Amino acid sequence: MAEHNKIRITKPLKLDSGVEIRDFDIAYQTYGKLNAAKSNVVFVCHALTGDQYVAGTHPVTGKPGWWDAVVGAGKIIDTNRYYVICANVIGGCMGSLGPKEIHEATGKPYALTFPIITISDMVRAHSLLLDELGISDIFCVIGGSMGGMQVLEWVAKFPQRIFAAIPIATTCRHSAQNIAFHEIGRQAIMADPNWEGGNYQLEEKTPTKGLSVARMTAHVTYMSEESLEKKFGRNLQNREAVTYGFDADFQIESYLRHQGISFVDRFDANSYLYITRAMDYFDMEREYGQHLSEIFASTTARVCIISFTSDWLYPTVESKYITRALNAVGADVSFLEIKTDKGHDAFLLDVPEFTNTLKGYIENIAKERGI
Amino acid sequence: MAEHNKIRITKPLKLDSGVEIRDFDIAYQTYGKLNAAKSNVVFVCHALTGDQYVAGTHPVTGKPGWWDAVVGAGKIIDTNRYYVICANVIGGCMGSLGPKEIHEATGKPYALTFPIITISDMVRAHSLLLDELGISDIFCVIGGSMGGMQVLEWVAKFPQRIFAAIPIATTCRHSAQNIAFHEIGRQAIMADPNWEGGNYQLEEKTPTKGLSVARMTAHVTYMSEESLEKKFGRNLQNREAVTYGFDADFQIESYLRHQGISFVDRFDANSYLYITRAMDYFDMEREYGQHLSEIFASTTARVCIISFTSDWLYPTVESKYITRALNAVGADVSFLEIKTDKGHDAFLLDVPEFTNTLKGYIENIAKERGI
Repeated sequence: MAEHNKIRITKPLKLDSGVEIRDFDIAYQTYGKLNAAKSNVVFVCHALTGDQYVAGTHPVTGKPGWWDAVVGAGKIIDTNRYYVICANVIGGCMGSLGPKEIHEATGKPYALTFPIITISDMVRAHSLLLDELGISDIFCVIGGSMGGMQVLEWVAKFPQRIFAAIPIATTCRHSAQNIAFHEIGRQAIMADPNWEGGNYQLEEKTPTKGLSVARMTAHVTYMSEESLEKKFGRNLQNREAVTYGFDADFQIESYLRHQGISFVDRFDANSYLYITRAMDYFDMEREYGQHLSEIFASTTARVCIISFTSDWLYPTVESKYITRALNAVGADVSFLEIKTDKGHDAFLLDVPEFTNTLKGYIENIAKERGI
Repeated sequence: MAEHNKIRITKPLKLDSGVEIRDFDIAYQTYGKLNAAKSNVVFVCHALTGDQYVAGTHPVTGKPGWWDAVVGAGKIIDTNRYYVICANVIGGCMGSLGPKEIHEATGKPYALTFPIITISDMVRAHSLLLDELGISDIFCVIGGSMGGMQVLEWVAKFPQRIFAAIPIATTCRHSAQNIAFHEIGRQAIMADPNWEGGNYQLEEKTPTKGLSVARMTAHVTYMSEESLEKKFGRNLQNREAVTYGFDADFQIESYLRHQGISFVDRFDANSYLYITRAMDYFDMEREYGQHLSEIFASTTARVCIISFTSDWLYPTVESKYITRALNAVGADVSFLEIKTDKGHDAFLLDVPEFTNTLKGYIENIAKERGI
């Protein structure tokens, strides 16, 4: 496999935990060309298990990038028109500083000596990336799920850098239920003896079973009850009748097992711990000690907030809360709830009302920006 | 610990899998006295992790029985008036025939040589118990969740034995989402090396970590998002601020870990596999090859169906489906959706609208029955 495209950040970054990091890598991909005015940057923020490979073929999995349906030449985020940048979050496992990288001081992987990171840390690290790339302004920052959390932090922390922001299927505050499902995943990973207290790389092991259970749990939360029913129902997997055993009799079982198994090939278990922790810690009002409207008081960005009716992980009510906060400070805010039965993952899927909305909104702001 | 109260069933029982069992134990408890007319039997069906210890102090956990708030002298199911029977399901782990019991032929625990059982098998085994006890008629069969599934099977299979039936927070068909969450639990158990392919008893091990993760997962599905938010929100566990680590910073994490750990002391991992499998296989229309209304065509029982607004495991729509089927055959059916934010577990909790409904309904049918 080719090396990930990386840049070394030399400026120090003081994390929310108090730990300072410096001389660290950020892995990133770009698509399209930066225009002369440097006014056409679309910064895409990835979700928990996403990475910088938004479009084209993913070099690790060989599959299309996670938003290949939306990002590309002639697509909604048209790489003939925009300069798309997506960077792996710190704590991740696709080349940015994360727990599986080698700690130069010890010559060993960080594992659990890696500092706890936050969504705010991820965004501040990426702002340093843009500094290094000589880019001061972002035309549009966009992302779904944890990507949406980063979008909200961009708007809060760097209002002067953002022309428009599109947080999708997200929240400004992880709920008890969100934390609960993540904690189950973490406990499943830590219960796997191959996790070895986090030191599985040194031991040349992989906590595949634990990570697989974590992925299965999360995956169910990404789909709606209706979509599971429509897609699988009680259909049997290549058999005429139940087998009265513990095989994957049902398609849903077979599907989940496959989701679990294929995930462990591309994702690092410790990264899963760190990134879910960052999401659980996410609570903007606690972080800033202010009401959300005060946090957004100085933004001039156009903000388009999108939620999905069947998303029970980050339900519409949470997007409405963000919308009200932006309205309260007179921000240029649009809010759209898309009717779909596809659940949280709708932002990754072909949902015409969503993609048409996105296309229309981006077209409009591009005109405003004169791109 | 005292032995469980058991009866030996000598009649053979042919399970749905085709396996025949005979000379097996059913563990059961009774509360109150059978009247002379034998007309005051309330048969309580327990849920996945419940057992026969409905009321009083549980001999294993030392805590109150799982429905102690409802069953007892002067309570809603008044043991001064009714003769309450509750039996451990086959496949269970409180004395009835189950995977942890010793297989007489081999002298070893059944473990995975135990046959797969179904909800129908559980009910037919319990009907043999009533035969042994010389009880032909049940005044009222009642249960929530998997208990409710058994209630529906009682009505379908033994219409002549049932005067009234109260299925609570249940379904006639396990959904893809229901199967998905159970499959996660099973995979978590089987991923635990201490599970030893099911033979942990022989190896003197216990798959505590896997069973704990399974319990945590299930527990989250028993509560509503609102109740988790009200009860825990983002409250921290005995600390002023997050610790930037993987400790249980949040109360919800601490609570779930506790739920997991305390469960493994009272429940058998293989029983968890078998009972969740029985629930996943539950689909009455497939089982009988008939529409639900045809299945219920010959019942004369009064049926009171109760659901809870915030139950997302077995939502109201599933109770409505059962209600419509009973209405279609002119059955004496009542349906009540109780407004509560307590989720699926509401049937175990102090929800006044629910308990008042139950009290009123049971009072009315007792009058009809002349008790």
